[in-house]
Amino acid sequence: MNKLKIAVVSYGNIGRYAVEAIREAQDMELAGVVRRAESAGTTPAELHNVKVVSNIDELGKVDVAILCSPTRSIPEVAKSLVAKGICTIDSFDIHGQALWDFRQMLDAECKKHNVASVISAGWDPGSDSVIRTLLLALAPKGITNTNFGPGMSMGHTVVAKSKKGVSNALSMTIPTGNSIHRRMVYVELEKGADFTEVEAAIKSDDYFKKDETLVKQVENLDELIDMGHATHIERKGVSGRTQNQQFEFRMRINNPALTAQVLVSCARAAAKQRPGCYTLPEIPPMDMLAGSREVLVKSLV
Amino acid sequence: MNKLKIAVVSYGNIGRYAVEAIREAQDMELAGVVRRAESAGTTPAELHNVKVVSNIDELGKVDVAILCSPTRSIPEVAKSLVAKGICTIDSFDIHGQALWDFRQMLDAECKKHNVASVISAGWDPGSDSVIRTLLLALAPKGITNTNFGPGMSMGHTVVAKSKKGVSNALSMTIPTGNSIHRRMVYVELEKGADFTEVEAAIKSDDYFKKDETLVKQVENLDELIDMGHATHIERKGVSGRTQNQQFEFRMRINNPALTAQVLVSCARAAAKQRPGCYTLPEIPPMDMLAGSREVLVKSLV
Repeated sequence: MNKLKIAVVSYGNIGRYAVEAIREAQDMELAGVVRRAESAGTTPAELHNVKVVSNIDELGKVDVAILCSPTRSIPEVAKSLVAKGICTIDSFDIHGQALWDFRQMLDAECKKHNVASVISAGWDPGSDSVIRTLLLALAPKGITNTNFGPGMSMGHTVVAKSKKGVSNALSMTIPTGNSIHRRMVYVELEKGADFTEVEAAIKSDDYFKKDETLVKQVENLDELIDMGHATHIERKGVSGRTQNQQFEFRMRINNPALTAQVLVSCARAAAKQRPGCYTLPEIPPMDMLAGSREVLVKSLV
Repeated sequence: MNKLKIAVVSYGNIGRYAVEAIREAQDMELAGVVRRAESAGTTPAELHNVKVVSNIDELGKVDVAILCSPTRSIPEVAKSLVAKGICTIDSFDIHGQALWDFRQMLDAECKKHNVASVISAGWDPGSDSVIRTLLLALAPKGITNTNFGPGMSMGHTVVAKSKKGVSNALSMTIPTGNSIHRRMVYVELEKGADFTEVEAAIKSDDYFKKDETLVKQVENLDELIDMGHATHIERKGVSGRTQNQQFEFRMRINNPALTAQVLVSCARAAAKQRPGCYTLPEIPPMDMLAGSREVLVKSLV
């Protein structure tokens, strides 16, 4: 069997879990990890038998690159790799117009260079998007609510940390129903910082001001950190003319581990798509799985 | 806009709900209903402004035929319609080898006649199959349990009704966890029939003997009939090397209404696939929806 050669680009939290998921996949081979040149000499123990390079060209043939860099850098990185004929997978996580613009830009590049890419392939956007799409097909009229948490919001945490006087922060997303969320922000303060000022700065930030936000001062923030997260998607709707069809999807998961697994499963799917750029609901779910079509259809359908 | 021309083949319970769902879909047009010649003259009120024919050729151009006939007749009917260049959708509901054999047979026919068909497009097999497939992509190791009910099993009810001395029957599927089910069978007996004999005949039938089965005699069976059904799919598994990832999907639905809606949503998807035969997890979920790709990606992903 020809194993898929996968490169992991950027090695933070998600990158680490992606390497684990690739090593567990029997139809994949870890071609190597791409890190910034500055990281040379600080290779962690688990990568000691892995090619770690600063330029992907040093890895030889790569079928798919899994991009684990921050969302804002993703479009540029994806475009440059697609131009080399490499399929890309990312978990670009800004919904709406930005996501659509990125998809259109990369779709044109993919078609030009004859490769397929899957974007926004985490859990939201990502697998939650597949659930929302399926529920709309099952009951075309009605309301879908996506409730997140309790769990740490990476984006909100970064914003809280950036405030003057804050030495460390954690922003938890708490679901209060109907897609409405409370933000519980825990902060560790620098010596001499004023809590009331920090609280006001956080609450007035664009990231927080539309949600109910509570800020709490704590002594040791590290003791509160847990990477667990959760989703609860609900839809009550109409199939044909029949009312009150009820659906719900729940998960309780390790956040970076699930994100990395979706990325890795999508690497397999990308290799099976026609040239172009896809979001998760635009690819056949079975293309994410290893194994023969016959065995999969018999056991899953 | 060119509306999809849809024919409904066979007009029982599912056919009736399929007609309703087609009428609610703005991108579709009901080309007509195909019934056996014996049904002529007994057209129900809701079909009075619909073409009801005994041969699909009388309907003119049909893009997609939704087959609402019993499972055992489906392969033959599907094959004959595909030979006319019509895409077919069905809810063939025998899992495993029979489903795979049907898919392979129809796949060859579809490719020969340049059309696409979607088979087993109800809720199980069907939308539940999409959930099981997605969960395997999210956590490749672990156990998935599919629990059904409480709800009426059509297949088991037919078998119970066929027993000597039974004038009417209802077989309810009751979930007891871990994909294990109890069968609660309610029977109305013919005059002079012996309940103990009926009970033994039902319990020893292949359909019932591997499950815990309880048979109860009732006076008026019709008072017990309700078309509600339910599914609860659970998976606890491993993403990469991270244990204890937990997922569940639940629905509580009108059974024939949901089956019909999935069939109708898949009619839309069939028109977008390359020639061949597909099960539900083999088609992109977004292809089941109406509307522009841009609007769908922005609102769902």
